[in-house]
Amino acid sequence: MTGHSDRAVDLADLERLAAALLPAEVRDFIAGGSGTERTLAANRTALDATYVVPRMLAGVEAAATRTSLVDTVAALPLAVAPMAYQRLVHPDGELAAARAAAAAGVPFTVSTLSSRTVEDIAGTDAALWFQLYWLRDRGVVTELVARAEAAGCSALVVTVDVPVMGRRLRDVRNGFALPSSVQAAHLAPGPSGAHDRRAGGSAVADHTGTAFDPTLGWHDLEWLRARTRLPLVVKGVLDPRDAVRCVDLGAAAVVVSNHGGRQLDGALPTALALPRVVEAVGATAEVLVDGGIRSGVDVLRVLALGASGALIGRPILWGLAVDGEHGVARVLRLLGVELEQALLLAGCVDVAAARDLTTHLDSCLP
Amino acid sequence: MTGHSDRAVDLADLERLAAALLPAEVRDFIAGGSGTERTLAANRTALDATYVVPRMLAGVEAAATRTSLVDTVAALPLAVAPMAYQRLVHPDGELAAARAAAAAGVPFTVSTLSSRTVEDIAGTDAALWFQLYWLRDRGVVTELVARAEAAGCSALVVTVDVPVMGRRLRDVRNGFALPSSVQAAHLAPGPSGAHDRRAGGSAVADHTGTAFDPTLGWHDLEWLRARTRLPLVVKGVLDPRDAVRCVDLGAAAVVVSNHGGRQLDGALPTALALPRVVEAVGATAEVLVDGGIRSGVDVLRVLALGASGALIGRPILWGLAVDGEHGVARVLRLLGVELEQALLLAGCVDVAAARDLTTHLDSCLP
Amino acid sequence: MTGHSDRAVDLADLERLAAALLPAEVRDFIAGGSGTERTLAANRTALDATYVVPRMLAGVEAAATRTSLVDTVAALPLAVAPMAYQRLVHPDGELAAARAAAAAGVPFTVSTLSSRTVEDIAGTDAALWFQLYWLRDRGVVTELVARAEAAGCSALVVTVDVPVMGRRLRDVRNGFALPSSVQAAHLAPGPSGAHDRRAGGSAVADHTGTAFDPTLGWHDLEWLRARTRLPLVVKGVLDPRDAVRCVDLGAAAVVVSNHGGRQLDGALPTALALPRVVEAVGATAEVLVDGGIRSGVDVLRVLALGASGALIGRPILWGLAVDGEHGVARVLRLLGVELEQALLLAGCVDVAAARDLTTHLDSCLP
Amino acid sequence: MTGHSDRAVDLADLERLAAALLPAEVRDFIAGGSGTERTLAANRTALDATYVVPRMLAGVEAAATRTSLVDTVAALPLAVAPMAYQRLVHPDGELAAARAAAAAGVPFTVSTLSSRTVEDIAGTDAALWFQLYWLRDRGVVTELVARAEAAGCSALVVTVDVPVMGRRLRDVRNGFALPSSVQAAHLAPGPSGAHDRRAGGSAVADHTGTAFDPTLGWHDLEWLRARTRLPLVVKGVLDPRDAVRCVDLGAAAVVVSNHGGRQLDGALPTALALPRVVEAVGATAEVLVDGGIRSGVDVLRVLALGASGALIGRPILWGLAVDGEHGVARVLRLLGVELEQALLLAGCVDVAAARDLTTHLDSCLP
Ligand SMILES: Cc1cc2nc3c(=O)[nH]c(=O)nc-3n(C[C@H](O)[C@H](O)[C@H](O)COP(=O)(O)O)c2cc1C
Ligand SMILES: Cc1cc2nc3c(=O)[nH]c(=O)nc-3n(C[C@H](O)[C@H](O)[C@H](O)COP(=O)(O)O)c2cc1C
Ligand SMILES: Cc1cc2nc3c(=O)[nH]c(=O)nc-3n(C[C@H](O)[C@H](O)[C@H](O)COP(=O)(O)O)c2cc1C
Ligand SMILES: Cc1cc2nc3c(=O)[nH]c(=O)nc-3n(C[C@H](O)[C@H](O)[C@H](O)COP(=O)(O)O)c2cc1C
Repeated sequence: MTGHSDRAVDLADLERLAAALLPAEVRDFIAGGSGTERTLAANRTALDATYVVPRMLAGVEAAATRTSLVDTVAALPLAVAPMAYQRLVHPDGELAAARAAAAAGVPFTVSTLSSRTVEDIAGTDAALWFQLYWLRDRGVVTELVARAEAAGCSALVVTVDVPVMGRRLRDVRNGFALPSSVQAAHLAPGPSGAHDRRAGGSAVADHTGTAFDPTLGWHDLEWLRARTRLPLVVKGVLDPRDAVRCVDLGAAAVVVSNHGGRQLDGALPTALALPRVVEAVGATAEVLVDGGIRSGVDVLRVLALGASGALIGRPILWGLAVDGEHGVARVLRLLGVELEQALLLAGCVDVAAARDLTTHLDSCLP
Repeated sequence: MTGHSDRAVDLADLERLAAALLPAEVRDFIAGGSGTERTLAANRTALDATYVVPRMLAGVEAAATRTSLVDTVAALPLAVAPMAYQRLVHPDGELAAARAAAAAGVPFTVSTLSSRTVEDIAGTDAALWFQLYWLRDRGVVTELVARAEAAGCSALVVTVDVPVMGRRLRDVRNGFALPSSVQAAHLAPGPSGAHDRRAGGSAVADHTGTAFDPTLGWHDLEWLRARTRLPLVVKGVLDPRDAVRCVDLGAAAVVVSNHGGRQLDGALPTALALPRVVEAVGATAEVLVDGGIRSGVDVLRVLALGASGALIGRPILWGLAVDGEHGVARVLRLLGVELEQALLLAGCVDVAAARDLTTHLDSCLP
Repeated sequence: MTGHSDRAVDLADLERLAAALLPAEVRDFIAGGSGTERTLAANRTALDATYVVPRMLAGVEAAATRTSLVDTVAALPLAVAPMAYQRLVHPDGELAAARAAAAAGVPFTVSTLSSRTVEDIAGTDAALWFQLYWLRDRGVVTELVARAEAAGCSALVVTVDVPVMGRRLRDVRNGFALPSSVQAAHLAPGPSGAHDRRAGGSAVADHTGTAFDPTLGWHDLEWLRARTRLPLVVKGVLDPRDAVRCVDLGAAAVVVSNHGGRQLDGALPTALALPRVVEAVGATAEVLVDGGIRSGVDVLRVLALGASGALIGRPILWGLAVDGEHGVARVLRLLGVELEQALLLAGCVDVAAARDLTTHLDSCLP
Repeated sequence: MTGHSDRAVDLADLERLAAALLPAEVRDFIAGGSGTERTLAANRTALDATYVVPRMLAGVEAAATRTSLVDTVAALPLAVAPMAYQRLVHPDGELAAARAAAAAGVPFTVSTLSSRTVEDIAGTDAALWFQLYWLRDRGVVTELVARAEAAGCSALVVTVDVPVMGRRLRDVRNGFALPSSVQAAHLAPGPSGAHDRRAGGSAVADHTGTAFDPTLGWHDLEWLRARTRLPLVVKGVLDPRDAVRCVDLGAAAVVVSNHGGRQLDGALPTALALPRVVEAVGATAEVLVDGGIRSGVDVLRVLALGASGALIGRPILWGLAVDGEHGVARVLRLLGVELEQALLLAGCVDVAAARDLTTHLDSCLP
């Protein structure tokens, strides 16, 4: 089957196609940020403001995009970001997305709030990372870690920027709730608070408030570090001091992220936070980044700013909405082709070479 | 009674609701700034340009918004800014606003030009501050101080940025005058110049010209300091040198303010002035700020820039216009909820912790 | 007679009124800049980007706007900029404008290309400066200096930024030429090249090309300095090195100007050039400035940047077009009222005090 | 014959005229950049953001625009940029453009992908440079160099920023292919891949992929340097380190270029790259620049930033499309007139003087 997604020549095309297909409240749930959506917009603007100085005459026949991310071999310096409830946009949900990730050779991150279980997803052959939300019920946390290990996940991604859910006003205005067909597959079965539609409130946010433990702290990270042999990735770090502490406690990597502008509105855009985190911990840990990455050029930008790789969020859901596995494959293929070309045009023989490029931040151009 | 204000999910909603309800000239009187409204706009832009770097893994169960402002206990690091003539937007005027402030646990500042007396407002249980305009009639100033003390006000807020009223062109174009139903309750009874409508002029500005003493100087501050046991707050300071002198003369606090862009057009926006004032006097005095604060994230921003707290101006009037006391309560509740969430998301256990956050000014993003 | 201009509450109102009255090609001749009009726009933007930090508690009853500019007493730190052919917009032309300047107590600069003679204008009681364009016919230059002296002018303003006329594309597109009713009163009588309309060209520019001497150099300035007892003002300086040389050769003042964006498109806006020129020569000479000054706040801005005063260009023509002398009086009255108020609000007892204000350049706000 | 182009008063007029005449896909092929066209836009914005500080009283009768570029005498500090397939916009193609260049006294650069042969173009009397793309077939490269030498070209311009063609999405969306009437005259005769229209792809890009050698490296430059007595110009350098190496290997000049925003989207705009390259190699080599130069003021800007001269790209094609040789002559005449005037207004007696002007980068104005 080939679908509409093949006509897309860049990710913006897929965004438009998905927007036309999805119900408004689902589109809003995906696209939205918190508060005034300032940080959401700034993620994008800060990338646009990052100019790269390409190198010439490097004699590069083909640029190698292959790399390793948190000890996982990756065909591209990319991983699929953890995103909840992917059945919202396509019946196959995470299965389809993971299959496409497998085919593209990039790690797929299974969310705690996945609408398919990690065991099911493990059947797809994708390299899996498991994303952990810190639930109030420590028993469930323990169980999730065990399931992730058993299912063959190769890293644990602990998301630390959701002690509570950010005020996503689109969802509040829409009174957004999950349809009963979409469930958090790892949590207790049956409709949860996330399904209870009420005017003037987001059921998904209500559910987070009930289920998540806001007190997640450094000692919990230590506790987790002691409990698992998997490498730990801490997702949601913006302050270099926090990054240092994560690495000191044994984290293999941090993800410079503001949760795609969905948590603290007004938080620093990731392209501005990235270089300082790299400076602080780049010598001893991997630094991943996400937020607004929409092209191979964006990937080149963050590599040049010192990242080891990037997580891709919303574009995966655009592809999934438009064409299921095939659409996600299109997203990853476009990113791969674009990145390979960007590396060639920048004179980089591989991903490591991109980290030696000079960048220039000029947030007013154009 | 619950009114329209409950549907508002942020303060911008309330602004829209109020704009739809109020007569154009009252809306303009409230919304307007002086001259080209450059400083009015810049107050807002400078806040938007202030990015905060949140901390993670702080293990914060609940963020304490409680603090003390000028020795007044406050449930939020906020006070209601002094604003004249609140009966313009609601028959209960200051009484309703003060009741909501009392319920929210934040100080209410009674303006010299209040349309209800400080004695009446004192009946509401709100913690009161009294705002002093320097009137030509020194006897009235003395009397106002005495009345404020007697009524139980816990601070005197001396506004120093109105030697004359700024040229607010909206009022001039509207030939704005007070309706006879709205009176300056502390001044001589009966219609004043502020009620005399004339084409091409603002009656309110005319009245200020007649009543206010433009020569207010440092010796007057000394005089006042000697006359009252109440802590002095000097409102309208932008230059750090002035802040130092205020504190040297015994002021307990300064408010970094350009009067909401209503006085000197072209004056520095407050978010830019704030850090330098904090640097100059923050160690020995409290530094409050106002101008364009419209969300809990904005409060977090100014705390991170070093402020002890913020005054809220126009949004109070939006709430009052839409729903009286209930509407003001909605404004304060939204700010409280937003701030608490912003603190949690920034890893701040309390207001003091927010002052250790790093900020980044990038006035071009996005 | 009182006219429409009384309804104007700021200079932008007068601009609109004038635009509605004037023929399109005259409006364009006045409003236009050279090339892409980048410098024209930047003059304005750079002023807007200049934020002032006002002082408080200065105890100022009334702000003195009186000052002296190039040894001429001036009721405001302003002079009317030299502008050619004022009869284009009003039959009384320079006479009306000079009468208004006289009434307002500010110097009026008579252009070499005035459409009324300096002798006629001298009858108005205005303090006069004479602006000198360097004509190819040295005899005429000599004669103009003699006439200026004889007519009682108190300064010679040598405009140095018009070796040739800038490419003002509006005039070129309009095929603009002077109507026969408007003549350069100081030059040989009868229609000149400036009156010969032709498609795709500006007759005014053609005339400049014929009449002006592009080789004007330092030795000419010396020659002039030796020939007249009048103080010399060099108008059109942007580079501090040129300012130094002017002062070394005996100039009493320089005007930081890019000719209102009408000469070199891409030239530095004057508010950015000003502080460096002040630093270079401010201790020993007066530094005036022009370009985009449209309010008393703008005057405060340039004073705070170190200028002694400002020249007002286009707004004078707006007033003249709308209401003749009365309209120009309105322009100067508005500027005076606005400046006095801006000084008061900035805590400045006089013009000198304004030069001690701190400024902040933030070209991205808002 | 005089055509429409005479009515154009600036290059923007010609752009509009050409846009109205050309088929949409040809217009897009010319106008387009790669990816999001960020670098395309930034080239222009960075020039606009470059303000020049003109000098006064220089006593300049006439500004000499004559200079020498890579040992070629040039009446203006300009050369026609190499541009492929000029018959796309006019039947006479490169012949017409070169004739106009000859008349204007500026070098014409013959592209490897010229639609007329270098021998034919050599008949026009223009000073010729030959632009070399690095073809997979080394024999053809050798032959092209020999033909260029034999035809009397005075420099070899090696373009190093096209290891592969940038993703120009307009062409991809248009499924752009060359019409059979337009051929790469120096390559094997008959339709090439560049003519094979297919949906969702650019035939021109496909052809580049087949024909060009992406491995072009430093050793190839050495090889070429040893093979020819012509001065080498390396086109497409942005990083000063690359510029240094080019010069060390014997290049006479570098062109700071991002291929008009057509190769790496996100690459630094040339006006920002230029000063650093000049600093690195300006003392020992010539530094040319291109990208967005659209007026004599732009030429002044890059001279003031240290360039020896500029290449003009798209505007040549606008002129060619509108009026053939006559249209290109109009483009060059406008640039010459504008530059001469800009030099005069900046007090520059010649091109060298312009390099001593001060510049100011303010990317936010206006
Ligand atoms: C619909 C949606 C659901 C998300 N769910 C999760 C989640 O379950 N766990 C998590 O750590 N992050 C989650 N995120 C955040 C993403 O992992 C990622 O940080 C963000 O989307 C990256 O920005 P981008 O979407 O601009 O690429 C979610 C984001 C979106 C848009
Ligand atoms: C309608 C209105 C009336 C005001 N009246 C007073 C007043 O009587 N005394 C005073 O010190 N400030 C007064 N202010 C200024 C406010 O105290 C405060 O500085 C400003 O409104 C803060 O900015 P914001 O409105 O953007 O929050 C007034 C402001 C408004 C909008
Ligand atoms: C219509 C017009 C005519 C002018 N004529 C002259 C002139 O004759 N001599 C001169 O030195 N400057 C002349 N100027 C420039 C002005 O003196 C002044 O530098 C400029 O207008 C200031 O900018 P503003 O118009 O933005 O205030 C003229 C400007 C305009 C708009
Ligand atoms: C239609 C077109 C074809 C081009 N062909 C070539 C080429 O064959 N060789 C080359 O080195 N550059 C080529 N370029 C790039 C130009 O030489 C030049 O770098 C660029 O156009 C300069 O930017 P400008 O068009 O904004 O002036 C081409 C550009 C365009 C627009």
